[in-house]
Amino acid sequence: MRRLLLISTSTMHGRGYLEHVRDALGQLLQGKKSLLFVPWALADHDAYADKAAAAFASFGIRLASIHRSDDALAATADAEAVFVGGGNTFRLLDRLQRTGVAAAIAARAVAGMPYIGASAGTNVATLSIRTTNDMPIVQPASFTALGLVPFQINPHYLDPDPSSTHMGETREERLRQFHEEHTTPVLGLREGSWLDVRGASMQLCGSTAARLFLRGASPREFAPGSDLSVLLQENR
Amino acid sequence: MRRLLLISTSTMHGRGYLEHVRDALGQLLQGKKSLLFVPWALADHDAYADKAAAAFASFGIRLASIHRSDDALAATADAEAVFVGGGNTFRLLDRLQRTGVAAAIAARAVAGMPYIGASAGTNVATLSIRTTNDMPIVQPASFTALGLVPFQINPHYLDPDPSSTHMGETREERLRQFHEEHTTPVLGLREGSWLDVRGASMQLCGSTAARLFLRGASPREFAPGSDLSVLLQENR
Repeated sequence: MRRLLLISTSTMHGRGYLEHVRDALGQLLQGKKSLLFVPWALADHDAYADKAAAAFASFGIRLASIHRSDDALAATADAEAVFVGGGNTFRLLDRLQRTGVAAAIAARAVAGMPYIGASAGTNVATLSIRTTNDMPIVQPASFTALGLVPFQINPHYLDPDPSSTHMGETREERLRQFHEEHTTPVLGLREGSWLDVRGASMQLCGSTAARLFLRGASPREFAPGSDLSVLLQENR
Repeated sequence: MRRLLLISTSTMHGRGYLEHVRDALGQLLQGKKSLLFVPWALADHDAYADKAAAAFASFGIRLASIHRSDDALAATADAEAVFVGGGNTFRLLDRLQRTGVAAAIAARAVAGMPYIGASAGTNVATLSIRTTNDMPIVQPASFTALGLVPFQINPHYLDPDPSSTHMGETREERLRQFHEEHTTPVLGLREGSWLDVRGASMQLCGSTAARLFLRGASPREFAPGSDLSVLLQENR
């Protein structure tokens, strides 16, 4: 049974790293002793792994970073659970693809290994990275991602600022452009919320509503606590 | 001699389409009768071409949109000047690459045909689209762009908002991540400014300063009117 936590942002303004998702992480990792961390979305893997290790040590979980492993595929095969951290989605997916770790994590997560993603780590859990907010600083061989859920997520979803005079596209305009090219649903996940996936069921958790974009329909708001399992059905 | 106008945004808040660059366009197109328009960054080519045609009609310039041409390469070969409009940079570059128009425009622009780019049309004029702000809704075969200038541009450059509580990366953080992977200089072109390239000389024009990002150095501001020709030297 799939067990996924797909988090919009690892850190809320004014709060500690992963602090707002502490209870959900504790519940997901209950009984686990270790966690495999993927720091590839940021450039400084050591600093990132140390920061993440400190956060999980408070749960009594030993974090092993994949960049310190001699054999990334073996580390994935042995992992009790995986956490893919945020940063640049293009850089992250490129490394996941080059190493074969993308397919290895996907196979294990589909078979029930708990998967935690934050920001870029949430983007790569979906069908593709086509709804990331990140700059394309690295070109991955393909935009196709792990496909742990059959829809797209836009993390850090941001409402338009009515006082803005900036002429760049709003987030909603960008997602409308996505639907000019594709039919896949996109869930805009605001900071403060996350998705808790358990097999065929999915719940919106946290403190903020999410905004669902379907091609050819008006966007729809879902309050925290909403059951979004319908999005897990592949042939909607 | 290269003659390029690389514009940050086609439209300033509260003003008409291309209104703020009217004088520069008039000067560049002096003596020309027609202009080839590339509308591929937006989905609705007809509406986009009609809007652009109206703007250039006021100069006495007849605009022909490439999407209405039977032979895009012949249209490019015959063009007196080219205008590549804004929208989604990934969609635009994909179409430019698939049709061969990218290479055809590049060859003509290097030989002196005036090139006007706005927003996405400015991104594709540079070495690559790796510093676009757009969402990767379409995957082009390569991020490599026309290479009319040997550096990167970030159009719609936006200063951080000190009052923001949003945790997504600032534009400056995104460009710093670019420099974790690459050494190419990046010019952040704020809305209201554009680059006027004449052969080996390049001037910053318009009403806003530009911010230059070099790997391993602090960002540097350049006031409107600055001579930025040094950025055209390939082996800096």
